[in-house]
Amino acid sequence: MNTTTLPAIGFIGTGIMGKSMALHILKAGYRLYVFNRSKEKTSALIEQGALWCESPKEVAAHAEIIITIIGYPKDVEEVYLGANGILAGAKAGSIAIDMTTSSPTLAARIAKVAAEREVAVLDAPVSGGDIGARDARLSIMVGGDSAAFKRVLPVLECMGNNIALLGPAGSGQYAKLCNQIVIASTIMGVCEGIRYAQEAGLDASAVLKVIGSGAAGGTQLNVQGPRMISGDFAPGFMAEHFVKDIGLAIESAKEMNLHLPGLDQAQRLYQRMLDKGMNRDGYHALYQLYLANEA
Amino acid sequence: MNTTTLPAIGFIGTGIMGKSMALHILKAGYRLYVFNRSKEKTSALIEQGALWCESPKEVAAHAEIIITIIGYPKDVEEVYLGANGILAGAKAGSIAIDMTTSSPTLAARIAKVAAEREVAVLDAPVSGGDIGARDARLSIMVGGDSAAFKRVLPVLECMGNNIALLGPAGSGQYAKLCNQIVIASTIMGVCEGIRYAQEAGLDASAVLKVIGSGAAGGTQLNVQGPRMISGDFAPGFMAEHFVKDIGLAIESAKEMNLHLPGLDQAQRLYQRMLDKGMNRDGYHALYQLYLANEA
Repeated sequence: MNTTTLPAIGFIGTGIMGKSMALHILKAGYRLYVFNRSKEKTSALIEQGALWCESPKEVAAHAEIIITIIGYPKDVEEVYLGANGILAGAKAGSIAIDMTTSSPTLAARIAKVAAEREVAVLDAPVSGGDIGARDARLSIMVGGDSAAFKRVLPVLECMGNNIALLGPAGSGQYAKLCNQIVIASTIMGVCEGIRYAQEAGLDASAVLKVIGSGAAGGTQLNVQGPRMISGDFAPGFMAEHFVKDIGLAIESAKEMNLHLPGLDQAQRLYQRMLDKGMNRDGYHALYQLYLANEA
Repeated sequence: MNTTTLPAIGFIGTGIMGKSMALHILKAGYRLYVFNRSKEKTSALIEQGALWCESPKEVAAHAEIIITIIGYPKDVEEVYLGANGILAGAKAGSIAIDMTTSSPTLAARIAKVAAEREVAVLDAPVSGGDIGARDARLSIMVGGDSAAFKRVLPVLECMGNNIALLGPAGSGQYAKLCNQIVIASTIMGVCEGIRYAQEAGLDASAVLKVIGSGAAGGTQLNVQGPRMISGDFAPGFMAEHFVKDIGLAIESAKEMNLHLPGLDQAQRLYQRMLDKGMNRDGYHALYQLYLANEA
């Protein structure tokens, strides 16, 4: 592949998700500039040819397309709007893509500030977890300008296989939070159904086999259910990250004057998980609260 | 098919589900004796060769295998244990199968009383709704004696394609209620996610297309979600029946000292649906509460 025809890419945030995603871009032949708060987490990428930068600002100065996938909205705000942030370094005409699950209103605000500097910012959170990132099979929910979306689509296609532009800036975040809202109540239902089956003396795996293909069936029941039954609570997706997402969803639902009682109930349970120090268990370890009769 | 080698079947309860199920048995070549509280609902079956009986007792006297699928636990109790009930007429060695979604403890009690008269009673509630019944593709969750289960399996196979014996009497009911417990919270999550997406100004159908194959995906999101979006609230499964099932689940969870907060929350919402006279809407019409901001 002739790399001189491809835009230079910047990548900020090389955690479990980001590292896999950046690697796909590198392997597709793009020149890649990287920054991460902990430098050592970029070493595998640098061995593969990525170029280290000292700040988001420096990444932005080198790249035409800048991708971020970091922790919390406050980090997003700092990385985009801070003194050493992307907008301080980005050239006019460049495009930034925030793939963090973050606040929709913050996404809209950043896009607005950036537009004044002729920089397009898309919000493009993902679902599919570490395995989706590794296999380049993420779902990517995008909000923002459609011309910018078209320009970056080949880059997004290095990382995902189910990519949609859903509306103006913030729409990607709204769609991702919609996803998390559905999951929040569903995982409660899965915990409760399995706990009930076990308490009734049934073989919960046999029950799952019968009900898993019917009206109760779905990814949560069929993937997380067996993990609950076998006591495998390792984090594919950590409880503390899910709690962050639930918090964002509740915050933006409040902005809409929308009452979501299932989500509120899930938040109370997840808060109890954090109170018990289970932050870094998988989010499906909610089942342990039920096991302890503390739900 | 030589009908003389097949056991005579009794069928009590020929509502939407029962009528389709009984028709499959009739078409498989079994002699069929029928009873229903409203006689006119048996006319289609009688035209096809089913034989009318004046009471459950009379059905039981004619049949070797008696199937029931009726309304509420009090009806089940009456049809099995009443003066004109099945146990008053059943021959020793016959088998009754209650396919109503009913109380697990009642199922165990009926099986015990029946065993004293040398009648086996299985509990075998179904999932799959009117379409599953029509297409003989029901899931059937069975509790009771395994020898009796083996004897009736060919008859169950006329109606379903996913059939499992899950334990002693009551186990089928427990499994079905487990199914309903999972659905109760899941449908809340689906309502809340879709409402949130719409309120955020997104095209909810486009969002469903992206999230429906991922971690949020499942039968409720992918089948009921589009109905909510298009405003189709016709009953595949009626709200008042779902409320009955939720009540049974809560009652038996209480017997286990099990706290299921997601289920409790769903019950509060469904009770509000009944209070608004939406008994006979589809259970997914819960979405209308959210639309009215009354959730």
